[in-house]
Amino acid sequence: MAVNLSPPTAESLLPVSGVELGYAEAHIRKPNRKDLLLIRLAEDTHVAGVFTQNRFCAAPVLLCKEHLAAKKGIRALVINTGVANAGTGEEGMHAARKTCGHVAVEMDCTARQVLPFSTGVIMEPLPVERIEAALPNCVSSLSETNWLAAAQTIMTTDTMPKAVSRRVIIDGQAVVVTGIAKGAGMIQPNMATMLGFIATDATVDADVLRDMVHYAAAHSFNAITVDGDTSTNDSFILIATNRARNPPVNGEGTAEFHALRDAVTEVATLLAQAIVRDGEGATKFITIIVEQGKTHEECARVAKSIAHSPLVKTAFFASDPNLGRILAAIGNAGIADLDVSRTKLYLGDVLVSEYGGRAESYTEAAGSRVMKEAEIAVRVQLGRGKESATVWTCDFSYDYVKINADYRS
Amino acid sequence: MAVNLSPPTAESLLPVSGVELGYAEAHIRKPNRKDLLLIRLAEDTHVAGVFTQNRFCAAPVLLCKEHLAAKKGIRALVINTGVANAGTGEEGMHAARKTCGHVAVEMDCTARQVLPFSTGVIMEPLPVERIEAALPNCVSSLSETNWLAAAQTIMTTDTMPKAVSRRVIIDGQAVVVTGIAKGAGMIQPNMATMLGFIATDATVDADVLRDMVHYAAAHSFNAITVDGDTSTNDSFILIATNRARNPPVNGEGTAEFHALRDAVTEVATLLAQAIVRDGEGATKFITIIVEQGKTHEECARVAKSIAHSPLVKTAFFASDPNLGRILAAIGNAGIADLDVSRTKLYLGDVLVSEYGGRAESYTEAAGSRVMKEAEIAVRVQLGRGKESATVWTCDFSYDYVKINADYRS
Repeated sequence: MAVNLSPPTAESLLPVSGVELGYAEAHIRKPNRKDLLLIRLAEDTHVAGVFTQNRFCAAPVLLCKEHLAAKKGIRALVINTGVANAGTGEEGMHAARKTCGHVAVEMDCTARQVLPFSTGVIMEPLPVERIEAALPNCVSSLSETNWLAAAQTIMTTDTMPKAVSRRVIIDGQAVVVTGIAKGAGMIQPNMATMLGFIATDATVDADVLRDMVHYAAAHSFNAITVDGDTSTNDSFILIATNRARNPPVNGEGTAEFHALRDAVTEVATLLAQAIVRDGEGATKFITIIVEQGKTHEECARVAKSIAHSPLVKTAFFASDPNLGRILAAIGNAGIADLDVSRTKLYLGDVLVSEYGGRAESYTEAAGSRVMKEAEIAVRVQLGRGKESATVWTCDFSYDYVKINADYRS
Repeated sequence: MAVNLSPPTAESLLPVSGVELGYAEAHIRKPNRKDLLLIRLAEDTHVAGVFTQNRFCAAPVLLCKEHLAAKKGIRALVINTGVANAGTGEEGMHAARKTCGHVAVEMDCTARQVLPFSTGVIMEPLPVERIEAALPNCVSSLSETNWLAAAQTIMTTDTMPKAVSRRVIIDGQAVVVTGIAKGAGMIQPNMATMLGFIATDATVDADVLRDMVHYAAAHSFNAITVDGDTSTNDSFILIATNRARNPPVNGEGTAEFHALRDAVTEVATLLAQAIVRDGEGATKFITIIVEQGKTHEECARVAKSIAHSPLVKTAFFASDPNLGRILAAIGNAGIADLDVSRTKLYLGDVLVSEYGGRAESYTEAAGSRVMKEAEIAVRVQLGRGKESATVWTCDFSYDYVKINADYRS
């Protein structure tokens, strides 16, 4: 079902020194599936995160922000699927706090040194007692080589686990960057992924790590969209254990900084794209590039207007070059002074539209040829500036409706 | 398929003195269907309109605005289905002008006294010669009693014609308000309907009529959404033939003004709701009322965030009370200082959420009961002001995907 996406092999995922992962079947919503993940971090690990901007954000998101702000050093992450613990009010906050408390006992740290994450159905209570009961199994399975099992544990409607590793040389020293993510639906910029965790053994200054998580998010998870819905629980966490012997990355603009930031961003981008490739019901992977805008922001608006249009997405599903729908979406992006006679639209290498109408050279056969491909690039030139933006999305199929109409049953 | 919507009977549609309607099969895109409508207006008729804000707006929209601005008195409207004449550049403008010219010859007026409208596939050329050839058939069928046939002629993916009449007494004099509309997809606020035409024989000042068309649009066509896509061709036209013997409606705030404005708005609202009831693939008719906001605008934003969420819409299709998705959509509306602990969510008469979580009194059985109904009211109280907004929408079904994946084939 997923578009050009294969499950990662366990061997391809490089351990990150100082990061151990343990999992269990806690029966949070359904039996016989891994649904609880514990990540233990070595001392002196730095952790930075970005979170959903949804006002109805989940209790664990509020608690993550609180615990990160306390700067007491994060020693563990606990992630459950099945129940999102969002739209649960005060009771939900209490449940998230209790979860952190149980983890703290197992990890011999304080509750404030634990970050909680939940994903699943909104407005249902978190069964804390099941999490408590399953935690010992998580602890006994802790291992640095469990990245694939961890990726499997955080899946919900994902059809396959998402995990990526890269090794990068920083000033002669090899460091590792390994990440996992889950997505599949409720995916849109700010934040896009439901959950993403990337760890590196690189030695990095804590402030630099915070800058890096924002940069990586902007160029990866915030540049994808499946259905325009922003989740209540979206979280992206970047972990640095400082175990590698690279010279500390402690300032922007240095070669070390760029090497590490690029590696983290590459892993984040591959994970984000994997979420789109495995988007609910996806049959096509679509890259939308908007160029020649006055600002990056207006380019992103046009790209998202195209990416969010159900009419455009169903046309991609049908492989139908009904490309006027893309023009309508461009016109719909809210750029009041857009001169449509200066815009150009390309589908793959085919010029579709210029001077506000169909290009003279365009043929339906050429459009059809590109629309039949599983990976399609849409390129829009606005003809009014030098900025650009890229967004990745998928098509809109029967299966999207089926998956979301059936999700709880 | 449409939700609680029956086709209007010819007898229910009251003629408007001074408005004649004629139709023909012009074979613009498909054979054996009425696809060309001509509306002849008596002399001294006032016409006002509101149009799409899409920057890629169609050639006929540009020409309508030009011809209305010329204030030479509109004598005819010509409407074709099959081809939208949008995304057609200079050639499209030329085709629209030629169409008006052909109508002008038949109607013995100037081209600037003709308003053109098109709906259908974007980025395909308008076959003006077919329109020209079919115009004599339109002329020979002109009649004041053709409102039902007119509503049928402008249908595209609509499953049934949409037409409404009302009689209203203005200062002792009966006047008639009759309207037709087409919609079905590409429906969202600003402008919502692809095409809507309402005529009255009331005597009205031209400036008052312009105010009235904006008011009626805001409370009807701009308060509905099917899929969040704004068409390139959306147009809503209000016609007053000034044939009735009512004292002229020439100022706001008078009893006559309110009587006529309310009648026009009621007809527009029923037509707009009919478009939603007949939304592509619709199985549910959903009214979203957002109350206690600081401004009407923020209430409308919350209502549209709910109405546009594919996850909410698929849950309605499934009759699944997965109501946390509505909370997520509220949180997603971009109100940065929204205090979710003060919001309340009702589904029909059932209190679903308060204090940021599930209401203690709420039961899944109560939610399920409401979700199974064909007409559902969602009520959100923001707890921060006195303003409100109402939006009408429909659910998102397999058939929406099917209709839009197959539309051109």
